[in-house]
Amino acid sequence: MSKTIITISREFGSGGRYIGEQVAQRLGYSYYDKNLIEKVAEETGLDKVFVENHGEYSPKKFAMAYAFVGRDKYGSSMSDYLYSVQRKIVLNIADEGNCVIIGRCADYILADRPNSLHIFIHGNMDKKIERIKTLYDKTDAEAKKLISDMDKRRSVHYGYYTDQEWGKAQNYTLSLNSSALGIDNCVDIISKLAETL
Amino acid sequence: MSKTIITISREFGSGGRYIGEQVAQRLGYSYYDKNLIEKVAEETGLDKVFVENHGEYSPKKFAMAYAFVGRDKYGSSMSDYLYSVQRKIVLNIADEGNCVIIGRCADYILADRPNSLHIFIHGNMDKKIERIKTLYDKTDAEAKKLISDMDKRRSVHYGYYTDQEWGKAQNYTLSLNSSALGIDNCVDIISKLAETL
Repeated sequence: MSKTIITISREFGSGGRYIGEQVAQRLGYSYYDKNLIEKVAEETGLDKVFVENHGEYSPKKFAMAYAFVGRDKYGSSMSDYLYSVQRKIVLNIADEGNCVIIGRCADYILADRPNSLHIFIHGNMDKKIERIKTLYDKTDAEAKKLISDMDKRRSVHYGYYTDQEWGKAQNYTLSLNSSALGIDNCVDIISKLAETL
Repeated sequence: MSKTIITISREFGSGGRYIGEQVAQRLGYSYYDKNLIEKVAEETGLDKVFVENHGEYSPKKFAMAYAFVGRDKYGSSMSDYLYSVQRKIVLNIADEGNCVIIGRCADYILADRPNSLHIFIHGNMDKKIERIKTLYDKTDAEAKKLISDMDKRRSVHYGYYTDQEWGKAQNYTLSLNSSALGIDNCVDIISKLAETL
């Protein structure tokens, strides 16, 4: 029987990571977020902080700048290498058993897998600011800037490696506004759907 | 108590209209689609076919061409007039009682209403082609072209009047892939959510 795979893409501050964790816990699925970073760090020999910073985020907010950063003579960059290792690990994880994977273009990498749910979690700016202020001890302005920067960097990274638009409804099985629906409701909807697969 | 409002935006061939109809029936809500066109035709004195063709679709596939079609000396066009009447009618409908409204930028017009669910239904091309072939007696190629043209025209119309991107997850409370989830599942998810509002 096919494994059930849930990928969670999320806006910064939307609670998407927490939702994924809760879903995994409720369904008894493996949960991959920081531990995926550890696997990539182990495989590449790169520092965990470097992997976390570059495995899902562009170093710059602009795609054109990104495309030319740190190329070697073959046109590859450290980001390309990181992406290729990360991609292989995501594919291996999906072969192992039921799982929830946070970010890392997993929705794109596993788009054609049967028994998969690809989820995008987004939210309203005021609610996201509240969440980030509390979690990271920031002012309103700092939280807003952080949200905007992180999402822009995720969006550029995703666009660069998938040639798709981050946050476009058509790329996901299901997209949810966690501010309007509430975190618990999102966990409920996703868990129940996974059980119908 | 606030009225519960469900707006359904949908890709052509995704079954979004049918899903909206089923949700309205299950919840006992008023359903607005063709009857909204009739209201607009009555108010404007315009022909129903004209209202249907221009109330949700750009005449051309390109926004720049659209922006300059049929302007009078005040810079307004028949499309602008139609949009303004349609907008007023959508607002009135939402004041009247619980309802499901299909298309017509209702998600944008009613974005700030409490107790509202704004839904986007999309699907996989092969499933959409199947649906359109059956409903309109078309070949595969004709169905594919029709889907692509209709969605492009909806997208241009929506972008022009809302300054937002059609199909961007962040504009909707919930986006669903009806091909992956199945029509009945979509009806279920939306109906159950509406009952929690």
